[in-house]
Amino acid sequence: MKVAFLGLGNMGEHMAANLLKAGHEVTLWNRTISRAERFRSEGARVASSPADAARNADVAITMLADDHAVSFAVESTDGLLQTLPKGAVHISCSTISVALSQRLAQEHAQHDQQYITAPVFGRPEAAAAAKLFIVAAGKQDIVERCKPVLDPMGQRVFYMGDKPEMANVVKLSGNFLIGAVVESLGEAIALARKYGIDPHQYVELLTSSLFAAPVYKTYGGIIADQRYSPAGFKLRLGLKDVKLVIAAAEAVDTPLPIASIVRDHMLTAIGRGMEDLDWSATAKLAAENAGLK
Amino acid sequence: MKVAFLGLGNMGEHMAANLLKAGHEVTLWNRTISRAERFRSEGARVASSPADAARNADVAITMLADDHAVSFAVESTDGLLQTLPKGAVHISCSTISVALSQRLAQEHAQHDQQYITAPVFGRPEAAAAAKLFIVAAGKQDIVERCKPVLDPMGQRVFYMGDKPEMANVVKLSGNFLIGAVVESLGEAIALARKYGIDPHQYVELLTSSLFAAPVYKTYGGIIADQRYSPAGFKLRLGLKDVKLVIAAAEAVDTPLPIASIVRDHMLTAIGRGMEDLDWSATAKLAAENAGLK
Amino acid sequence: MKVAFLGLGNMGEHMAANLLKAGHEVTLWNRTISRAERFRSEGARVASSPADAARNADVAITMLADDHAVSFAVESTDGLLQTLPKGAVHISCSTISVALSQRLAQEHAQHDQQYITAPVFGRPEAAAAAKLFIVAAGKQDIVERCKPVLDPMGQRVFYMGDKPEMANVVKLSGNFLIGAVVESLGEAIALARKYGIDPHQYVELLTSSLFAAPVYKTYGGIIADQRYSPAGFKLRLGLKDVKLVIAAAEAVDTPLPIASIVRDHMLTAIGRGMEDLDWSATAKLAAENAGLK
Amino acid sequence: MKVAFLGLGNMGEHMAANLLKAGHEVTLWNRTISRAERFRSEGARVASSPADAARNADVAITMLADDHAVSFAVESTDGLLQTLPKGAVHISCSTISVALSQRLAQEHAQHDQQYITAPVFGRPEAAAAAKLFIVAAGKQDIVERCKPVLDPMGQRVFYMGDKPEMANVVKLSGNFLIGAVVESLGEAIALARKYGIDPHQYVELLTSSLFAAPVYKTYGGIIADQRYSPAGFKLRLGLKDVKLVIAAAEAVDTPLPIASIVRDHMLTAIGRGMEDLDWSATAKLAAENAGLK
Repeated sequence: MKVAFLGLGNMGEHMAANLLKAGHEVTLWNRTISRAERFRSEGARVASSPADAARNADVAITMLADDHAVSFAVESTDGLLQTLPKGAVHISCSTISVALSQRLAQEHAQHDQQYITAPVFGRPEAAAAAKLFIVAAGKQDIVERCKPVLDPMGQRVFYMGDKPEMANVVKLSGNFLIGAVVESLGEAIALARKYGIDPHQYVELLTSSLFAAPVYKTYGGIIADQRYSPAGFKLRLGLKDVKLVIAAAEAVDTPLPIASIVRDHMLTAIGRGMEDLDWSATAKLAAENAGLK
Repeated sequence: MKVAFLGLGNMGEHMAANLLKAGHEVTLWNRTISRAERFRSEGARVASSPADAARNADVAITMLADDHAVSFAVESTDGLLQTLPKGAVHISCSTISVALSQRLAQEHAQHDQQYITAPVFGRPEAAAAAKLFIVAAGKQDIVERCKPVLDPMGQRVFYMGDKPEMANVVKLSGNFLIGAVVESLGEAIALARKYGIDPHQYVELLTSSLFAAPVYKTYGGIIADQRYSPAGFKLRLGLKDVKLVIAAAEAVDTPLPIASIVRDHMLTAIGRGMEDLDWSATAKLAAENAGLK
Repeated sequence: MKVAFLGLGNMGEHMAANLLKAGHEVTLWNRTISRAERFRSEGARVASSPADAARNADVAITMLADDHAVSFAVESTDGLLQTLPKGAVHISCSTISVALSQRLAQEHAQHDQQYITAPVFGRPEAAAAAKLFIVAAGKQDIVERCKPVLDPMGQRVFYMGDKPEMANVVKLSGNFLIGAVVESLGEAIALARKYGIDPHQYVELLTSSLFAAPVYKTYGGIIADQRYSPAGFKLRLGLKDVKLVIAAAEAVDTPLPIASIVRDHMLTAIGRGMEDLDWSATAKLAAENAGLK
Repeated sequence: MKVAFLGLGNMGEHMAANLLKAGHEVTLWNRTISRAERFRSEGARVASSPADAARNADVAITMLADDHAVSFAVESTDGLLQTLPKGAVHISCSTISVALSQRLAQEHAQHDQQYITAPVFGRPEAAAAAKLFIVAAGKQDIVERCKPVLDPMGQRVFYMGDKPEMANVVKLSGNFLIGAVVESLGEAIALARKYGIDPHQYVELLTSSLFAAPVYKTYGGIIADQRYSPAGFKLRLGLKDVKLVIAAAEAVDTPLPIASIVRDHMLTAIGRGMEDLDWSATAKLAAENAGLK
């Protein structure tokens, strides 16, 4: 298929590479164009704007940092909304707000374009290995039609329903659940340390028994090691996502008390100078709040 | 070894059976004696009091409901403190307070008896299958000496350190982490449902990816099914454990904000008539708080 | 002075009446024009649009429901930004977001107009009696110049500083503090009732001693009486203000954990069907959460 | 009346002095006896133990630091339970747990003694000036009979009901409400400071309008001044009281989410080295959490 791929960050670059490997005809766009040029040798075309990239595409994929970047790439005068052919599909893979996703759905409908969402779970390593978990939503036949593009990027596609924002809700709530794991693990490990328990043994126990899940292993390790820098995912980015899930919940009158705690602790961590640390630094805050040095 | 086993509830009965199977010489005591009598055919002796059971034991195991029951079985005039031979070991497997565990350690030392702790993670099915995770603490050589008794009851023994209360802290904090999973899952699933997402598909996604852990599968299933009755573990018992972890944390000046939320929501669930439901009914509360019927 | 007054709700109608009484030359605008017509007999002119009202004004006052209404009255093609004379002053009395207030400050500066804020504390009765507390911010000489207009509307003007958004922060944080009083009183009264204490006696004690403040008297009375309907200030309006204070705090990386609780409980109250009650219905929620009928 | 007064701390010394002034025949006991000796010149007798003090008393008043001290003074072998004449009254003025108060009620009944509670609101200055607010509970005729003793100590006696623990609940919940004021004020003032607002002007505004209550003036002043030392009431004592109100609430299955926040923040403040500061140091914590130095 003819694929426009917009956004070559540390996730997008791997996803685009996997699309090229799968034999798609890929046109790339990135704000810093040099990141796109590298892929010419692998057969990619490089476009000068989102509109340019999407002009003849069957599918345009956006994998950008935030609402602002997606809005620019879609809605601006250089945006793909202007050029994406009728009937072609915009697949939004970015972690964006429910509100923006709903607006994009309307705008694409007005332009007789298709819009589905496909945010992903996984870190850059998983993106490189095509091991992402892809959460898709939108009209089912359109999602089916996009399978040749989605499959090469991940290990499994989960279809969540026919409203595009459903996948955004799933992605945001998934990040909220990770934040909840970090916060509660941080509290529990602080308590264990106060009683003289070795945090590595504690995490080993948890992750060998009831909590044998990737997220506990990853973050349990970081917390036991107190390895908050360099940041895999910066605190302020984590805060952004927690705010987005709270906004999505407020829009449907749903309280998320644990998310409120996580949000408040992220703000506190920023106030206490941890802005450049990994978003799991809420566990560092928990340790300090318990009087651990 | 000569083992006194006190407490034949829905966990203890399986643990005692496994000790019998392993060839130990087991004397049983239970407040309702009929639950002990059943085991005579399997070679068990039945005692009329904790003191009677422990009289010639190498090891006395307590697996009782709460602080009150353990205090009675150990410290009362009929308690094992009176009769357990010098040098013999009391293994406390119950989920009890850190404060009681510390007191028992002192009392046993004064009686020249040994005291270690070995609380367990797992449900009755795991106890029956000898698949429990056993968390042990106390003097390392004593824990070693007790291996022939611990091993037949579980799939793995984790040694946490030389102070007996360490294992109690681990057990209580583990239950806190489960409570945090239930609460955060409950909130996330309520949010998903508000957006029309099928809760089973949502849980399937989570537990097939980042959250592929037993605790998410068990409780995710319960919450998606809204299957809070019959209770596997009643709300008030869960509340008791959360109170114990908060007390253990307060004793070392450690805040556990997530535990505070879980505790307050358990109290609220009781106030709203869910007392007889499973302790995961905080997820039912989350759904109702979001306006779901 | 020539005053344009925009917004004749249950606060604005009294404030406008007091300006007329004070001898100002007042032009009124209200979305529903009939509410303005009534004042013709008292000497008011009636305008057909905000722009029309502000055309020759020395001062234009906005007293509208929310950001949306203020944005329309100021920034739309019919907005006062188009017509307010150079050097004339827009006094924003509405409870609006800090973000909107900052934007209006910029826009007025670009139009060589002055902009100050003057939100008020007090209920309609206080507005009628010119007993409002007025919180002003903006350039000090401009606030001084507006005194002849501010004084007739309230009992005292508090000057908070030279940035217009300061008064918005004060107003929003004041509403937050009221929300905190309601929530904490609601919890305390629920506890008292559980112990059989008469809530009226309890409130009488509090408000005769350490808590002898209007806000405790007003809301203590409502809670003791369980008089949440008719609503003096609807739950969703209270929620709006709590969201605005949280947004203002997030913008400067400040956690407000009590505001998070209040927000979550307001959402819960809405989820439980209390949307049409007074915003103090969080106290009703507290009572129900405690198992009181 | 013959009054035994036990406990001459910085509150009790003034209360005892006022009883002497009122002409009562007062016998004093204090753990550090020198504090009692000073009153001999004013006509007081000094006793060597609580039991000794209460031997011929009509009324025995306890005004001690905590449950432990009250339990010693009442229930120990030297306690007043042993000697207080039948029909005489124990008036418990201390801030103690509901559980202890309920137990004392039973024990006094078993000894044919009367038991009422009369905890007080006010600081040492108010105690000296006989301006305390006294909250009484217990059998109404017994409270009436004690009026000649209660009246000289305070400015007003509030009768809350016939179960003695009712006054304890009121006292504890009152302290909770003060803690809630401090916490919410601390958050609001931190927010105001972040926007450049002068905290003294902010407090002046609040306490001149809706929040014109002693508790806002006292603590608003402390927070604006950042005057947390010397401590009027130390953080750990505040924490003790918040724990007691939470325990009282748990006993009747009542959640107090705001109290949970206050408790967690007090623990955090202790963890961050503020143990010797005034209990209003939770406001210092709020400021630091907001990134203020």
